[in-house]
Amino acid sequence: MDYEAFFNGHLGRLRDEGRYRVFAELERIVGAFPRARLHREGEAPRDVTVWCSNDYLAMGQHPAVVEAMQAAIGAQGSGAGGTRNISGTNTLHAALERELAQLHGKEAALVFTSGYVANETTLQTLGAMLPRCELYSDAFNHASMIAGIRHSGATRRIFRHNDPRHLEELLSAADPATPKIVAFESVYSMDGDVSPIGEICDVAHRHGALTYLDEVHAVGMYGTHGAGVAERDGVLDKVDIVQATLAKAFGVVGGYIASTAATVDFVRSCGSGFIFTTSLPPAIAAAALASVRLVSGQPELRTRHQERAATLKRRLAAAGLPVMPSTTHIVPVFVGDAALCKQASDLLLERHAIYVQPINYPTVPRGTERLRLTPTPLHGDDDMARLVTALQDVWQTLGLSSRAAAE
Amino acid sequence: MDYEAFFNGHLGRLRDEGRYRVFAELERIVGAFPRARLHREGEAPRDVTVWCSNDYLAMGQHPAVVEAMQAAIGAQGSGAGGTRNISGTNTLHAALERELAQLHGKEAALVFTSGYVANETTLQTLGAMLPRCELYSDAFNHASMIAGIRHSGATRRIFRHNDPRHLEELLSAADPATPKIVAFESVYSMDGDVSPIGEICDVAHRHGALTYLDEVHAVGMYGTHGAGVAERDGVLDKVDIVQATLAKAFGVVGGYIASTAATVDFVRSCGSGFIFTTSLPPAIAAAALASVRLVSGQPELRTRHQERAATLKRRLAAAGLPVMPSTTHIVPVFVGDAALCKQASDLLLERHAIYVQPINYPTVPRGTERLRLTPTPLHGDDDMARLVTALQDVWQTLGLSSRAAAE
Repeated sequence: MDYEAFFNGHLGRLRDEGRYRVFAELERIVGAFPRARLHREGEAPRDVTVWCSNDYLAMGQHPAVVEAMQAAIGAQGSGAGGTRNISGTNTLHAALERELAQLHGKEAALVFTSGYVANETTLQTLGAMLPRCELYSDAFNHASMIAGIRHSGATRRIFRHNDPRHLEELLSAADPATPKIVAFESVYSMDGDVSPIGEICDVAHRHGALTYLDEVHAVGMYGTHGAGVAERDGVLDKVDIVQATLAKAFGVVGGYIASTAATVDFVRSCGSGFIFTTSLPPAIAAAALASVRLVSGQPELRTRHQERAATLKRRLAAAGLPVMPSTTHIVPVFVGDAALCKQASDLLLERHAIYVQPINYPTVPRGTERLRLTPTPLHGDDDMARLVTALQDVWQTLGLSSRAAAE
Repeated sequence: MDYEAFFNGHLGRLRDEGRYRVFAELERIVGAFPRARLHREGEAPRDVTVWCSNDYLAMGQHPAVVEAMQAAIGAQGSGAGGTRNISGTNTLHAALERELAQLHGKEAALVFTSGYVANETTLQTLGAMLPRCELYSDAFNHASMIAGIRHSGATRRIFRHNDPRHLEELLSAADPATPKIVAFESVYSMDGDVSPIGEICDVAHRHGALTYLDEVHAVGMYGTHGAGVAERDGVLDKVDIVQATLAKAFGVVGGYIASTAATVDFVRSCGSGFIFTTSLPPAIAAAALASVRLVSGQPELRTRHQERAATLKRRLAAAGLPVMPSTTHIVPVFVGDAALCKQASDLLLERHAIYVQPINYPTVPRGTERLRLTPTPLHGDDDMARLVTALQDVWQTLGLSSRAAAE
């Protein structure tokens, strides 16, 4: 077989469909967020305004986080030196895990190298080891949950997105004796809609299922202490296992779960993706710990964040731009075609020095391609005015529709 | 189902078998390697000598690495802010990937959040997407390769450990037209033996297979520039895809592959575990870049490392301790029982302030439990003398055998 020809052929098809991904090479600038420097081969670097960062609260440049990370490197070095079991557990990992457990009102927490690995490892481990386990999965669940569910080999049932009645229907048809897990998200990252957590958990528990909630796009941003939508909705105790990230609102890197001591210890003891990997550097744990404490204690950050998102949605709608019906800080603007989506992104960058990555398949279904805006507390009114004007120009240039759905 | 009872029951069985893992909580100390501070609840912290770190060359505390990481945090902050595609590609990621490609003499490289994810994602993506792909896997391959191979759904064939003749036999029986990948390691991390890379690659290529080599426990430590055993053996060009880590000899965190531009671009474009995860912080890339450049240019580090390992093996053998027949820097000492292995580790710590983690199932097969020593360039003659005396005391106390194999 000619492997090179096969790979090149596939890449050619991605290019033909307008789905070939070109990564924008950025240089972040502490103190200048949401500004960053864009680098391209053969061109002088230039400043752009980033409108698609998942550093949702700009904690990645917060002085206390930066200083905590630098200090930990000076004291402990650049790496952990081993897996958690073999010389790679640090006092800072332990402190971070205690903090995260407390944030979510759980007995224990466990940190993974990423949110992806947290989801994949936990669901795979539980699905594979609970005898005859059945996994009930929201139709819009993230790729990392789907990976864990698939790799577990457990029976998988998909319930319609955010539909507790469909879940009820599926669970009613199941053998009451088998172990079950209902896995879903609080904030769906590409649409910005929110699940009815309490209702889904109630249905699950009536049928003896464990509840598994991904709060990756919610921690730090919802709830009095930033524990997520489950805290905001007053249903923290209905969530048996919560999973989230240190890489978005907390501005660092890594993922985690929080649950009962026994559940966490079981995943710690049996999860291949946890056991056989070098732990996060102590300095990452130090930065995350500083960030979680700060964010948790500053509800005004969350108020400002929500105000910015609401303001942006209002302005986009007023300008006749097809903002999709998000109820969160995520503001998707509908395009509906992969090639046009990429062109819109390119024009924003070339003409207006605004960086918003096109969101195409497989991240969203074909025909629902979009620009996904993420206003942060540091995006000012001037930034918004420039963005709206730029989008209007791009929409006119490309003849894009103002309807926020496929026609 | 009573989930708590199920989890606790499983954990109880691990405890009964002596396989329940208690993580040692360490505080690393820049400038004091291999010394670290051990923390335990209710006890005063105390200094121990670490003999099981995978920070093989102590690069995690190198001033140039520490400074590069601190400077990058000061300039760019604590995180990347997104996936590689959505605002998370940094100039430092690009520079690191160029450096890694050059190190291995390949056209391109791709950085992942960990070596585990690099293996799992790459093998899964290739195995799933190459039509009717067959994966040939060394019997001792690491859990992360096995995960990728299994999850790909491709046909899996196991060849006997380091046995090119068995591989030849299996490949001869296969359909010559199907795509094939032969996946193996250079240094096997728990035994410290080395594969015949050139021979295995020749067999693979005669049958039209791609070769995939894991050099996780070899990069930085073998070859003139530290590109691994393939460089040492002069067979870099026979390896189609090399995979390795930034977390061991390079002292930071993260993993990577290097290969042809098309192969790397294919995995970049299709690998779920690469696409759907926040990229490593720019500061991690900066630290890794500094470390790779340093290590690559200092062959004397590798000479000293090998001398230390040879000296330790000689001393252990002279003292009648059951050092296993490793040909590398990894020095396993045979115990052969999970509970005794844990007791040996505990005694070393309590009586002698020496930290070596017990290596039990599932990391090694049952009946081959061991202590795994990793001498670094910074373990001095005095450290070795104390270690040998301590091991002799522990062996005598527990009545352990001096034979380096199951009896």
